[in-house]
Amino acid sequence: MYHHIKKLMYTVNIGTPDVKFGRMLLEQFGGANGELAAAMQYTVQGWNCVDDIGRRDLLLDIGTEELSHLEVVGALIRMHLAPLKTDREAAEADPLVTIAGGGGVGLFDSMGNAWTADYLKITGELDVDLRSNIAAEARAKIVYERLIDHTDDPGSIDTLQFLMTREITHMKAFSAALESLEKNPFSVGRLKPTAGIVDEYFNGSTGDGSEGDTDMRGPWQTSFGLQPVESEMNGGEGLSVGDVNGKIQGEDRGKQDDAQKATTSVGDDAIGMKAAAKNGPASRHASNGKSSRQSKHKIEELVS
Amino acid sequence: MYHHIKKLMYTVNIGTPDVKFGRMLLEQFGGANGELAAAMQYTVQGWNCVDDIGRRDLLLDIGTEELSHLEVVGALIRMHLAPLKTDREAAEADPLVTIAGGGGVGLFDSMGNAWTADYLKITGELDVDLRSNIAAEARAKIVYERLIDHTDDPGSIDTLQFLMTREITHMKAFSAALESLEKNPFSVGRLKPTAGIVDEYFNGSTGDGSEGDTDMRGPWQTSFGLQPVESEMNGGEGLSVGDVNGKIQGEDRGKQDDAQKATTSVGDDAIGMKAAAKNGPASRHASNGKSSRQSKHKIEELVS
Amino acid sequence: MYHHIKKLMYTVNIGTPDVKFGRMLLEQFGGANGELAAAMQYTVQGWNCVDDIGRRDLLLDIGTEELSHLEVVGALIRMHLAPLKTDREAAEADPLVTIAGGGGVGLFDSMGNAWTADYLKITGELDVDLRSNIAAEARAKIVYERLIDHTDDPGSIDTLQFLMTREITHMKAFSAALESLEKNPFSVGRLKPTAGIVDEYFNGSTGDGSEGDTDMRGPWQTSFGLQPVESEMNGGEGLSVGDVNGKIQGEDRGKQDDAQKATTSVGDDAIGMKAAAKNGPASRHASNGKSSRQSKHKIEELVS
Amino acid sequence: MYHHIKKLMYTVNIGTPDVKFGRMLLEQFGGANGELAAAMQYTVQGWNCVDDIGRRDLLLDIGTEELSHLEVVGALIRMHLAPLKTDREAAEADPLVTIAGGGGVGLFDSMGNAWTADYLKITGELDVDLRSNIAAEARAKIVYERLIDHTDDPGSIDTLQFLMTREITHMKAFSAALESLEKNPFSVGRLKPTAGIVDEYFNGSTGDGSEGDTDMRGPWQTSFGLQPVESEMNGGEGLSVGDVNGKIQGEDRGKQDDAQKATTSVGDDAIGMKAAAKNGPASRHASNGKSSRQSKHKIEELVS
Amino acid sequence: MYHHIKKLMYTVNIGTPDVKFGRMLLEQFGGANGELAAAMQYTVQGWNCVDDIGRRDLLLDIGTEELSHLEVVGALIRMHLAPLKTDREAAEADPLVTIAGGGGVGLFDSMGNAWTADYLKITGELDVDLRSNIAAEARAKIVYERLIDHTDDPGSIDTLQFLMTREITHMKAFSAALESLEKNPFSVGRLKPTAGIVDEYFNGSTGDGSEGDTDMRGPWQTSFGLQPVESEMNGGEGLSVGDVNGKIQGEDRGKQDDAQKATTSVGDDAIGMKAAAKNGPASRHASNGKSSRQSKHKIEELVS
Amino acid sequence: MYHHIKKLMYTVNIGTPDVKFGRMLLEQFGGANGELAAAMQYTVQGWNCVDDIGRRDLLLDIGTEELSHLEVVGALIRMHLAPLKTDREAAEADPLVTIAGGGGVGLFDSMGNAWTADYLKITGELDVDLRSNIAAEARAKIVYERLIDHTDDPGSIDTLQFLMTREITHMKAFSAALESLEKNPFSVGRLKPTAGIVDEYFNGSTGDGSEGDTDMRGPWQTSFGLQPVESEMNGGEGLSVGDVNGKIQGEDRGKQDDAQKATTSVGDDAIGMKAAAKNGPASRHASNGKSSRQSKHKIEELVS
Repeated sequence: MYHHIKKLMYTVNIGTPDVKFGRMLLEQFGGANGELAAAMQYTVQGWNCVDDIGRRDLLLDIGTEELSHLEVVGALIRMHLAPLKTDREAAEADPLVTIAGGGGVGLFDSMGNAWTADYLKITGELDVDLRSNIAAEARAKIVYERLIDHTDDPGSIDTLQFLMTREITHMKAFSAALESLEKNPFSVGRLKPTAGIVDEYFNGSTGDGSEGDTDMRGPWQTSFGLQPVESEMNGGEGLSVGDVNGKIQGEDRGKQDDAQKATTSVGDDAIGMKAAAKNGPASRHASNGKSSRQSKHKIEELVS
Repeated sequence: MYHHIKKLMYTVNIGTPDVKFGRMLLEQFGGANGELAAAMQYTVQGWNCVDDIGRRDLLLDIGTEELSHLEVVGALIRMHLAPLKTDREAAEADPLVTIAGGGGVGLFDSMGNAWTADYLKITGELDVDLRSNIAAEARAKIVYERLIDHTDDPGSIDTLQFLMTREITHMKAFSAALESLEKNPFSVGRLKPTAGIVDEYFNGSTGDGSEGDTDMRGPWQTSFGLQPVESEMNGGEGLSVGDVNGKIQGEDRGKQDDAQKATTSVGDDAIGMKAAAKNGPASRHASNGKSSRQSKHKIEELVS
Repeated sequence: MYHHIKKLMYTVNIGTPDVKFGRMLLEQFGGANGELAAAMQYTVQGWNCVDDIGRRDLLLDIGTEELSHLEVVGALIRMHLAPLKTDREAAEADPLVTIAGGGGVGLFDSMGNAWTADYLKITGELDVDLRSNIAAEARAKIVYERLIDHTDDPGSIDTLQFLMTREITHMKAFSAALESLEKNPFSVGRLKPTAGIVDEYFNGSTGDGSEGDTDMRGPWQTSFGLQPVESEMNGGEGLSVGDVNGKIQGEDRGKQDDAQKATTSVGDDAIGMKAAAKNGPASRHASNGKSSRQSKHKIEELVS
Repeated sequence: MYHHIKKLMYTVNIGTPDVKFGRMLLEQFGGANGELAAAMQYTVQGWNCVDDIGRRDLLLDIGTEELSHLEVVGALIRMHLAPLKTDREAAEADPLVTIAGGGGVGLFDSMGNAWTADYLKITGELDVDLRSNIAAEARAKIVYERLIDHTDDPGSIDTLQFLMTREITHMKAFSAALESLEKNPFSVGRLKPTAGIVDEYFNGSTGDGSEGDTDMRGPWQTSFGLQPVESEMNGGEGLSVGDVNGKIQGEDRGKQDDAQKATTSVGDDAIGMKAAAKNGPASRHASNGKSSRQSKHKIEELVS
Repeated sequence: MYHHIKKLMYTVNIGTPDVKFGRMLLEQFGGANGELAAAMQYTVQGWNCVDDIGRRDLLLDIGTEELSHLEVVGALIRMHLAPLKTDREAAEADPLVTIAGGGGVGLFDSMGNAWTADYLKITGELDVDLRSNIAAEARAKIVYERLIDHTDDPGSIDTLQFLMTREITHMKAFSAALESLEKNPFSVGRLKPTAGIVDEYFNGSTGDGSEGDTDMRGPWQTSFGLQPVESEMNGGEGLSVGDVNGKIQGEDRGKQDDAQKATTSVGDDAIGMKAAAKNGPASRHASNGKSSRQSKHKIEELVS
Repeated sequence: MYHHIKKLMYTVNIGTPDVKFGRMLLEQFGGANGELAAAMQYTVQGWNCVDDIGRRDLLLDIGTEELSHLEVVGALIRMHLAPLKTDREAAEADPLVTIAGGGGVGLFDSMGNAWTADYLKITGELDVDLRSNIAAEARAKIVYERLIDHTDDPGSIDTLQFLMTREITHMKAFSAALESLEKNPFSVGRLKPTAGIVDEYFNGSTGDGSEGDTDMRGPWQTSFGLQPVESEMNGGEGLSVGDVNGKIQGEDRGKQDDAQKATTSVGDDAIGMKAAAKNGPASRHASNGKSSRQSKHKIEELVS
């Protein structure tokens, strides 16, 4: 049940209205990463989260606060858009708000797109939802920062600074909620990824680019057990998908990080071929017959 | 520049077509968390990422692989939807695909919603985009898992297992790319959040619920410097927004994690006044006459 | 500022879950006439309504209650959709909710359409918004009635009956708010409609239909001063738009029901006639028998 | 069956084209409250209204006239947008119309949103549809007024004045059609609302606001049998939902205003008390000094 | 399977960035007739086209090239939009790209509409799809031409000229693919249209217009066996739908251009009766007692 | 100006209602290729087409007829959906139509997607629009055919056969209107494509596919002056984009098919160099020292 208190969570004061800035601010009212999106995403996640009553509370705490933010940012925008009602030139800054909305705030973004629930990321899988929320808060933070960068009005900056700050607060809270689940960071749901293939970083974009691009190496190709694999298109051998079988022996769906539905894994021979592959396709053919893929398996076991 | 090779990245074989399962699979073709969404999100992020040529490569590597996945899942769906063309009962499973699409695959989700770029999260801020991508991969993983849970066809499972596995691969790569930026996890952009307020966890949802809910405590209220604050609605003192000022002295926009645009922070007096507030959490009342809010400031400095 | 209380506004209990009914119920969660639409329409109207602090309160009272209703209907739906998580056949009832949403409730309607602010009617003109709200409540009422008609589960009926009842409550409140404005029911905004033309009911659809249709007469052609006018297509003389002039002399925008921007009126004689035309068609017949409108009337009588 | 006559319903003449005003005018062509929306809403309602052949005629009369209006407003917009074709600066006023549409009019609103049937309100319940139409006409009227307010071109004003006038005409006709149904204004469909609860005005928004808001009283809390009820959040007792039961004895669905599906109502005594409660909260206090609410509580306790 | 090469298909160089032109260019990135639409339309058509392996190759060849074009036009836009990041005035040219997108390119059109698969035309009927593609290329060509018309920057013109040229290339290829199917141009699918009615050009718009319009005649009324028919509304006899029967004798669905499902055709008697119709076009009155409709049948046989 | 006649253009009779077929039929009411899309596309094109009064008439004739078709198909659907109102099982066939629409027809497709103007193709370039219309009619024809394939009800087939027939009629008329413009089929707008590059068919998809695909040759690579060019990715030389220059000498925008904005063409030297390219198609190697590319230029001149 909800209750509304006739007081803004943050008092809004602005100097001279700036209609074009008011239009920009709509991104945080009816935009893809705005306050309604945050409020709805967390609140609906919370309503669905009946199995973890603690994190349900977290989701509803923050979802409710975002509603209060929506009200604050709405008040800020309304002040900036006020001249639309009477001034033809101002009106041109946002004809939709002027003509259809009478100069008031509406659930549109800065380009007049009606808010849509397509913006939301709600899966009902708690750890996944928390990751979506951390990313959502990061997006909202950077959007507030950009808005602050486009105004010099102290009152507007104050309000935006407050709202921006709270996104970091929420980012902390969601991060704590995720960490306290104590899950392997790459463990999602119950089914395990196929060993071997899960560690193959596929080099799908190659060559020397006209914009100074070139084929780069980085930790994203070698961390967490990953190894680069070259595409067949680039003379490589591609992903090790040769000997897929439908179900693994003794398959049994279990608890998270344990369950296996199927395997798309490499067989021994394939492993043999791939043996010493550390630095690219050429070096992947090892002579000693002990594959790097096998050792990768070991690493996998240690890591996961 | 792109090139297409007339070979699926993963060979698809199915047993008996299952039109209702085919319809479910559309979630991964034209759905909100499907392969086109992944391909477009990473690829467009990569095209915009001209300042970090290494992670640009990463984004294009994975963006391109997702296109190949789109082709694979499209082939899988087409096989399952084949009976739509000739069988009236099958046709009822998805009249849009049958009547408008002739039984072929289209860029719709399982409920016939046309794919929209509203699904994408692209901010042009690299670390933010990487967080969005980690969350996107987690969502795609769980969606594949649910699809696997709804079929017993070994060939379909094989293909889905392959695709599911690759999401974890990408999750690892994006995580490595984010970690190797070596940023404070709560540092986004260049402007600092307001000290003090950033650490106030606001308890916006209270009471004892009819579904067994009750007001919970958890690490999300006390980690990373956070402290719970009660709402005025619940007899608390609310967020410490009393003495906001527009700009801080000597404000100067600097490099990331350094810049400050404004402050919404508490001053000493305000802290003094609030020290005696009646209904706040116990830990906020400092016995030495120095408010807990001040010490919170110190914690902030240590933590950030 | 908002606060959430961990208690449903109405306790929800259902018997056996009915997934297909759960899908129907989504109309009231993320549908065009559902609770979110109501909550957002009234709340945003309220935030914009700064000139009438009393009716602003009304809009926020009801907007907030609709949020509580959203929570109630969400709880009801979640219970009915619970089998989606584990049962393949149930899952087919709503593959989007199953596969993408994990069986939880989402901001979609019964056909999986994401909620959009295009559903809202917010003009910032208070009396117009109140009319939109009365109509919105009437729509919500009939939707609840249809839902009740499609279930036999006593607990579901109870909840729906409660929600349906509240729509009538709100209809009463909005009606009282509109009536207490004491405006002419056909007075909207400040500009007056053009006399004469405003009373011409245009008969745009004629003939005898294949479905038993025929050209009908009714009070909607003769009430509130209206008179039927036949289309040129049907041998009539059409609307009296012959002698339009751009601005009337001494035009001055005034207060509501007084202002005139332009006239699309009939000629001097007709205006003369109108001096006496206060109560409907009868009084429009001038004593001198000379007006063009009279002759039109005659033709009308001959034709009709 | 439709026929088109090569003559505008109203002759359009403009002075100097004003591209930015042309863009504003798109609200009435492809916008949410524009002429296509009106035409489609009434026409489709009419096609569905096979049980009331008279009002079906009304809906088709007006639906058809709105099509003619669409043509008129389209002609007006085309004239204002003409410079887009050749003038780069003009083109910037609406790049979508310029680049994609070649300077012609399209089914977009002033911000380039494609027209969508989400704008329509069609329930198939005649009295509800008529209410939606009255509200739609009121919205269209105010939109035309705002457009007139933003131009000084006499020819444009003429045309808009004509179109604005017709909205009032239609408002009259729809109102007459609704009134002649001779229904209780709060009677929608066949199921009755629950007595007692239907009259409780819930005060969901309270407190003294930072924008001069305060908790207001008004006729919307005491008219039509309504009485204010305070939220539990504000120390009140909330809605009287304690003694719900699933079905009433001898339930039988009957004709409108008679049918009952369920009751969430108070007991006999409460109803008895309400017999005297016609004019607001004052009369709820029984002469013995014991409030009706108290006795309702008792009944609640007995029943539940 | 796809591969990305780090080289643009066409090297992009621009002079001074022009943010308003950059916004216009978005039409070809995320717009209705842009490169993503082309890439997706042809590619998905190709994936579905498993029965004609040659034209499947064609569709994938061109679909892939369009992806490369998307990258080229994206690079061009990014250069033009670069000032959005730092310049407030520039930012006003596209607040969505600035605030939400950080100045980078996104899948939006020039008015900020998110790309949607609703833009695509995919039927799974090869000859129909080829026609849709020819039209799509023609649209893309004219859009490029208009963009070229709105810039004087040589580098931008170069790139656009290249892209525009390729649309004509593709138009040629799709036309050749359609022609080489050697189908009757009016033969689509397998069911035959009803003889007689198929040749009646219905004059649904008549009269003399206020914009100089008048009822015109042209080859579109008399080519390919067509003959004009006047509407009943205009004193004509309308389409010859009088003696429809549900199924024709010996109906048998056969191969393309042979199959018949039903007939809505005229019988001999009907033809005789109609021969004397008063208000039809002159050519319909045969003096030799052989109705023009009969001879029309003959023409039909010759033509088809 | 429009007039409605109370008579369907085609009398609709059905046998037993078939709700699932009724839902399929919605594709032709509110679907992407349905009658409203046709009506709006041609009508709006016609309103914009003020420079060719003859073809404007054509567009309005057919646009108006499509409105009449919309009414016919709406009547057909309403009959099939009638059981939704009273039958729970029937209601499950389309909960949106049942619950929100009361069993009546609405502007949705078979999956409940609201009709959107994104379906329309309107460029304001007459020959382009006519091509779009020919394709649109072909799509509508095949959709009707598929609907006919999914019913055995004679009355429904009759109506659909009528509507399907008219699509071919319109296809003929639009084709005649396009042909009578007597334009080169590959001439669109006024700017010429770049000679040379316009004739290069780019082989963007190669290899031997897992679904029996292989790199094919066909007339689409060699008709209308086209010649195949291999991608650099596949060992080819790619498109001849080496020596682009911004503007051609003496550039002057002229009348259609004459104008040139820029050139992306090859110069003589480039042609000489490329003559010896190793991996191009056989025909590109000229033995007489005159490159095939040069002769291609000649062909271009003859063809265009």
